[in-house]
Amino acid sequence: MRENFVKDIDLLKEMFSVMGIKSQQVIKLAVESLKEQNLEKANQAIKLDDEVDELEYEIENKCLLLIALQQPIAKDLRSVGTLLKVITDMERVGDYGVNIAKVTLAIGNEKLIKPLVDIPKMTAIIEEMLDKSMESFMKENIQLARSVAEMDDQVDALYESINDELLEIMVKNPSVSKQATSLLLVARHLERIADHTTNICERIIYMVTGERVEIN
Amino acid sequence: MRENFVKDIDLLKEMFSVMGIKSQQVIKLAVESLKEQNLEKANQAIKLDDEVDELEYEIENKCLLLIALQQPIAKDLRSVGTLLKVITDMERVGDYGVNIAKVTLAIGNEKLIKPLVDIPKMTAIIEEMLDKSMESFMKENIQLARSVAEMDDQVDALYESINDELLEIMVKNPSVSKQATSLLLVARHLERIADHTTNICERIIYMVTGERVEIN
Repeated sequence: MRENFVKDIDLLKEMFSVMGIKSQQVIKLAVESLKEQNLEKANQAIKLDDEVDELEYEIENKCLLLIALQQPIAKDLRSVGTLLKVITDMERVGDYGVNIAKVTLAIGNEKLIKPLVDIPKMTAIIEEMLDKSMESFMKENIQLARSVAEMDDQVDALYESINDELLEIMVKNPSVSKQATSLLLVARHLERIADHTTNICERIIYMVTGERVEIN
Repeated sequence: MRENFVKDIDLLKEMFSVMGIKSQQVIKLAVESLKEQNLEKANQAIKLDDEVDELEYEIENKCLLLIALQQPIAKDLRSVGTLLKVITDMERVGDYGVNIAKVTLAIGNEKLIKPLVDIPKMTAIIEEMLDKSMESFMKENIQLARSVAEMDDQVDALYESINDELLEIMVKNPSVSKQATSLLLVARHLERIADHTTNICERIIYMVTGERVEIN
């Protein structure tokens, strides 16, 4: 019985890992689309997110059935409970990627008010956070999970700096306010992605230790 | 056996209903705190959200145990699965309320750049959406759920109008850009709350009919 459970949960973890890779691609495509003003990439990002949504739905159904059929207890039950939670966070990660892609579509070919520097920098950190959170999930490595959650501070600091810079630009040149607030929203979406990744890491720690933590 | 399940799920629904009422209070307090620049109310909102988080955690644990112990199938399994999802959305609703309260704390006693009109209007619609979504959940009324999801369009329209208005203010008077972008963020948080309420309604329809829908 327990053997079946282990096999099933491993399969579900693999599915979640695929979901994570796809969500990362959504964000990568979305930020690239913004930087390069490439509307086709923006549309690709939006389309790819449908696959993320589909995986969430499949994993959720399999998790519920697994609990009902195998009645896991203690850590096993926490593992399935964790999966049910982290897929929700990962689905949101993809959604924020879509929001960014939609900003690209809204800005279109209109000249960017400045070359994007901090937004790609923020994205690079987030990609690393997502990578490491997936690794810590697969390996149940709570030290790694903790270190990822701590990276959230870097993202927050970049968000503040983007915020200040864009406000300054708006004050100097009010006519670009519309695009500046759109870019501000992109930074905000990225900051939220980091928050969801932090949630995932907190959940991993709960799965392994049974203790609820709130990092940051 | 099924009798026990019905009793348990009814209790969980009641708990969710309490969670919904508390989340609504968080938003109400947060928006009032902003409108009245009442920092104490902002802190009350932030504190109350802890109770929302606590309820999410309790309901989640009870749901997982319920599935494991009673092995519900078909609609019963969908009901527990729905609960697991809607508590996540409701928890986010509370979080966005906290974000709004934090804007109040950041603006502090600094004079508001304009009396708030559309933001309270948006909040009133959201309160109605939350009320009706809870009612449709308790009564499993999918017509009501559908009508709530459709109200999301009104919220989106108000968001667009607030967006335009604040951008215009910034263009005319760049020195208020900082507060204007903060208020823009509040409108964005409210718009996200309506999205989560829409998610809840889509889930209710899935629970009752077994069919996945996406409204809006």
